[in-house]
Amino acid sequence: MNEFQLIKLLTTGLYTNTTVKVGPGDDCAVLDLQIPGQLLLFKTDAVVEHIHFLPDADFKLVGQKAFGRCLSDIAAMGGKPGAALVTVAIPDVGESAKLELIYQGLNGYAAQFDCPIVGGETTKSNAGIMISVSMLGTVSPENLKLRSTAKPGDAIFVSGELGGSISGKHLEFEPRVREAQWLVSHFPVHAMIDVSDGLAGDLRHILDASKVGAQVFSKTVPISRAAKMKSRSGDAAKPALLAALTDGEDFELLFTLPARYAVPLADQWKISFPGVKISCIGKITDKPGLFLCDENGIRGFNAHGFDHFS
Amino acid sequence: MNEFQLIKLLTTGLYTNTTVKVGPGDDCAVLDLQIPGQLLLFKTDAVVEHIHFLPDADFKLVGQKAFGRCLSDIAAMGGKPGAALVTVAIPDVGESAKLELIYQGLNGYAAQFDCPIVGGETTKSNAGIMISVSMLGTVSPENLKLRSTAKPGDAIFVSGELGGSISGKHLEFEPRVREAQWLVSHFPVHAMIDVSDGLAGDLRHILDASKVGAQVFSKTVPISRAAKMKSRSGDAAKPALLAALTDGEDFELLFTLPARYAVPLADQWKISFPGVKISCIGKITDKPGLFLCDENGIRGFNAHGFDHFS
Repeated sequence: MNEFQLIKLLTTGLYTNTTVKVGPGDDCAVLDLQIPGQLLLFKTDAVVEHIHFLPDADFKLVGQKAFGRCLSDIAAMGGKPGAALVTVAIPDVGESAKLELIYQGLNGYAAQFDCPIVGGETTKSNAGIMISVSMLGTVSPENLKLRSTAKPGDAIFVSGELGGSISGKHLEFEPRVREAQWLVSHFPVHAMIDVSDGLAGDLRHILDASKVGAQVFSKTVPISRAAKMKSRSGDAAKPALLAALTDGEDFELLFTLPARYAVPLADQWKISFPGVKISCIGKITDKPGLFLCDENGIRGFNAHGFDHFS
Repeated sequence: MNEFQLIKLLTTGLYTNTTVKVGPGDDCAVLDLQIPGQLLLFKTDAVVEHIHFLPDADFKLVGQKAFGRCLSDIAAMGGKPGAALVTVAIPDVGESAKLELIYQGLNGYAAQFDCPIVGGETTKSNAGIMISVSMLGTVSPENLKLRSTAKPGDAIFVSGELGGSISGKHLEFEPRVREAQWLVSHFPVHAMIDVSDGLAGDLRHILDASKVGAQVFSKTVPISRAAKMKSRSGDAAKPALLAALTDGEDFELLFTLPARYAVPLADQWKISFPGVKISCIGKITDKPGLFLCDENGIRGFNAHGFDHFS
């Protein structure tokens, strides 16, 4: 059973009620708690030692990453961060120096994104550090963006540059909260997600949820310097394009909108966010599946992404 | 550094803003997100293998416990549960039978207390299972109950029977959500907390937060059958009264209200909840500290509770 089958097994048949507008399966849950003109976003996300960071990491950056991952999910729904709770599980609760660094990172992003930490707990872990962040946010119904609302004919955009985040960006990314707020208030975005599982994986989440397909133009995929350097160094596990398509933890915005907005969006984005690249990488199609287009034609891109490149 | 000093270190100087009505330090955080007539409660709590349950536990009850602990905190603030997120960290994500049992327990309480699980994640742990639940609730400002609002002269009440929860109740308690809702809508409760650290420990949280003291009448402390049986069996680590005062995980309501309501409260509680004991165990005083009264007089009860009984 893979991760997605497991989630399906566990979340099928869960109790629900009329306050739940979106349950498990998108970047955040969406609740209607009768806030005038606003829906509530609710998200939890954990980072685990040896999986999301190494024991010799800068723990301030680890705290920042734990908080930033939730901020990125709130952003991808079109929302504004509201408040957060933090659980830190640590083998030795006496390691207060590490805990202080983690909290410096958490609280730095809390202040920067106006999202106070309002509680939580520190508990003993049986092995390794784990930081779990729960976050609330708000979004007006017209700005709420889901995975399930991409339409055939949409242009597909992604912010920033992708791949090779393991070289450093996975700990030091900038959650695209301001960019997403600007985007949903200026353009009729159809579907949005943050790139955490890798471009191909997260685009596939949009395609599956929206019951559509996509053609991605290989040449337009923005490949990070880190992914390019790694592929040139000879010790790369994968070519740079494959890294950009399948590495995780980019925390960029991936979204679709009607193709007629593609040029104005690209133009206005560059003016508003000169330091953040924006790329139109393809289009949404009726035909299910994810297809890569290059000078050799069109070919399917399978779930793991490796077969066509090896 | 003890747990409370550590929390103080980590939570001092955290960023805040005007939406935060109560930050770290009470059973839940309290946020004003402009819900007409309602404040939002926000809580997270984790259970960890070997600390809160053993590897051979009934995992349905473990799930129920993880969810019930948060329900108990929402109840103790005077609130109604709203929605929850669940993070399960497990060494082998393939152990789907255990995960299914945990979710059965979680979802059973979700349905019973109208508090849907709206998301979460399942992640790999480096050792042992950990379940972290984040919960939202709502409370009208007049029903909100804090730790910090006990007044000298208040009568002190506790629901249920205390001590010896390790014999079974810690996995099978009934969160006092209905009782607390009834209580705050019928009586002018001053301060409330749920008994999770033990009666003496949690009463001390009220005393410290409210800057008052208390006299507890030993004879009136409701001692559970489990604590009595354990003390009689000869292998008890502590006498039954001490168990009732210091064992944790009772998940009962501990609250104070003006003494003139003590008799009507006791009478009406017995009619509304015939299956749940209610006990007036003492009174709030001006003089700081926690004092035990019995036929031998009044004596201080220290932080650990053992000295006066050994």
